[in-house]
Amino acid sequence: MAKIAMKFGGTSVADLDRIRHVAELVAGEVKAGNQVAVVVSAMAGETNKMVGWIKELDPLFPAVEYDTVVAAGEQVTAGLLAIALNAIGVKARSWLGWQIPMRTSAMHGSARIEGVDPTEMNKSLEDGYVAVVAGFQGIAPGDRVATLGRGGSDTSAVAVAAALKADRCDIYTDVDGVYTTDPRIVAKARRMEKISFEEMLEMASLGAKVLQTRSVEIAMQHRVPTRVLSTFDPKAGGTLLCDEEDIVEKKPVTGIAYSRDEAKITLLRIPDHPGIAAAIFGPLADAGINVDMIVQNVSEDGRKTDLTFTCGRSELAKALDVLEKAGEAIGYRELTSDANMAKISIIGIGMRAHPGVAQTMFTTLSDKGINIQVISTSEIKVSVLIAEEYVELAVRALHAAYELDKV
Amino acid sequence: MAKIAMKFGGTSVADLDRIRHVAELVAGEVKAGNQVAVVVSAMAGETNKMVGWIKELDPLFPAVEYDTVVAAGEQVTAGLLAIALNAIGVKARSWLGWQIPMRTSAMHGSARIEGVDPTEMNKSLEDGYVAVVAGFQGIAPGDRVATLGRGGSDTSAVAVAAALKADRCDIYTDVDGVYTTDPRIVAKARRMEKISFEEMLEMASLGAKVLQTRSVEIAMQHRVPTRVLSTFDPKAGGTLLCDEEDIVEKKPVTGIAYSRDEAKITLLRIPDHPGIAAAIFGPLADAGINVDMIVQNVSEDGRKTDLTFTCGRSELAKALDVLEKAGEAIGYRELTSDANMAKISIIGIGMRAHPGVAQTMFTTLSDKGINIQVISTSEIKVSVLIAEEYVELAVRALHAAYELDKV
Repeated sequence: MAKIAMKFGGTSVADLDRIRHVAELVAGEVKAGNQVAVVVSAMAGETNKMVGWIKELDPLFPAVEYDTVVAAGEQVTAGLLAIALNAIGVKARSWLGWQIPMRTSAMHGSARIEGVDPTEMNKSLEDGYVAVVAGFQGIAPGDRVATLGRGGSDTSAVAVAAALKADRCDIYTDVDGVYTTDPRIVAKARRMEKISFEEMLEMASLGAKVLQTRSVEIAMQHRVPTRVLSTFDPKAGGTLLCDEEDIVEKKPVTGIAYSRDEAKITLLRIPDHPGIAAAIFGPLADAGINVDMIVQNVSEDGRKTDLTFTCGRSELAKALDVLEKAGEAIGYRELTSDANMAKISIIGIGMRAHPGVAQTMFTTLSDKGINIQVISTSEIKVSVLIAEEYVELAVRALHAAYELDKV
Repeated sequence: MAKIAMKFGGTSVADLDRIRHVAELVAGEVKAGNQVAVVVSAMAGETNKMVGWIKELDPLFPAVEYDTVVAAGEQVTAGLLAIALNAIGVKARSWLGWQIPMRTSAMHGSARIEGVDPTEMNKSLEDGYVAVVAGFQGIAPGDRVATLGRGGSDTSAVAVAAALKADRCDIYTDVDGVYTTDPRIVAKARRMEKISFEEMLEMASLGAKVLQTRSVEIAMQHRVPTRVLSTFDPKAGGTLLCDEEDIVEKKPVTGIAYSRDEAKITLLRIPDHPGIAAAIFGPLADAGINVDMIVQNVSEDGRKTDLTFTCGRSELAKALDVLEKAGEAIGYRELTSDANMAKISIIGIGMRAHPGVAQTMFTTLSDKGINIQVISTSEIKVSVLIAEEYVELAVRALHAAYELDKV
């Protein structure tokens, strides 16, 4: 007998027929002799509807009350799925965040899971009940409802799997796995049989929307064998997240991710002396702005230089405001910005052993006349900032250059 | 400074504009220097929508999961009202049943409040926060969500008021008070300035829909001064529930209630011996059927008699089934039933001191050609069972006979 965690997203539980379909998939695992914990999102559209109400009442809503409202969506689905399971003779009970309890940080709206107590859920599983867990939600200090941010139900599922020491965690979604890149851009994009946790982490944090980044971190940390597969075609194979060692052939590049939500800010002619970076990034950090790529030119005269960095597009206005207010302390001559930027990243654990991988990227983009504005690299990825209008062209060219359509 | 509990039903919070209006009414009490706990129902239509989903998934749904689903409706409203209050500068926080905690019995779907812990709410009120309480819900043994049955938010409000030792409890609804009878039937029905707890309890349990019966019980038990008033016209006056001693002129009849949800069952020619009532009503009680009025004819020969009783219309089929199965043990000759019955009741604490009140009722109905099928009385009410088609005629005739349109 194995212990399985399953997760179904909003489109998988969008209406009663789909909830019944999910119940059948869960029943299949139960009939196979498994103990099952199933994590569900809100019915597609419900969260957006509630967020709309909240923003209409107050654009500067208190995050803790936002959480109280939107967590109701997952509560409804968890109860409905428990009912659907009971209706087909499968014993099931729902679990809300506070009932487990799933403890989180106090960062309402994007809380971090700090601990999942498996005791009560395990008792219930031993009694033969399927645990139907409301995803996306936990309980913050002060016994308030907290939510984990968009895509948070993935994280709930992996955290529940880790706490229960589940044999695997199956993330059912509306695609049948993780692809080499977005199939809407590259028709020849190929589903990967396996991907290492490290690569998936980069893919997720660099823009691939298939899993929430935090869920991959937890899966990696607790070594939870995690699969991504299709709710509507579960036999289609899916993609297994696994240890690097379990991947035999380590290709230099295994996937291409992109993010359109990028903006660029340049400070011209700033003093080139120690402490200038702190003067710039300190106030930005205080304002809660996430700075991503940073590049500083070598100064010609040793006295003045230029600095460029990127942040999320939605944070651009706030970032400019912060920098204008800190203008005197920093001492730049001019502040320029561009909201229409995108980031393209190539990812692969084989990159470590294959020199020249980045060079292929730069040449390929150059051949298409695409200007690279900022570059950032890590051991297993290279990211470049380009104008947003070139996204599709760049992704397609790189997919072909690294022969990702071939197994 | 007074401590006030306020309650707003589903139509009062049906959309964002109405929630903003409720926020203004609450802000008014806060600005008057009061500590305020406000109890809210789900937005009109939400509970019905969810109940529809549940019944479609499984007509024999597990009640505990039903509760988990439908309680989400009040959770959403509580969060939204807290946001609307913060938006107009009134400090507020939401309270779910488990956060208070409001402990209930394990009778899911129609749980009874067993205790409301005022400690944490009082601290929050002292800190200057409005307590926005999700009505209709509590926490049952085993830390499961429980709901209090239809109209349960009234009960939540009075229970919160009692626990907080509030100076008064204002029930805002879509009518401006308690009327001598249903104004949709009698145009001249008059709003009562005051009504005693005892009378209100009879009115509610005999069919007046303005307050849930259990809420009146709690108000009476804890002597919570409770007002019913209109959300849309709060200055209109309302009705105050108070002690009998606070009502100076005790009229023989103060109100007329009716219920259309009645069915009648007659067992013909049953043995007239001790134990026969137990043989009939034992199996009905075991099946959870609520028997209301009972009448047994005097037997002519001392051996056989007829027995008639009433139950809720929705329970008729089940009751007949139970009696058919117990047919041999009871030994009736025939079982007849009528689903189209109604109960009309006259209520008044002055009845105790005024003989002849019931006689006026019987004469009035007789004059209109309405046949009385069963009668039941208590100290402050007389109820009669009649054919449903006579409801409006009977209510109007009695309203005139007791001169209820006159102050």
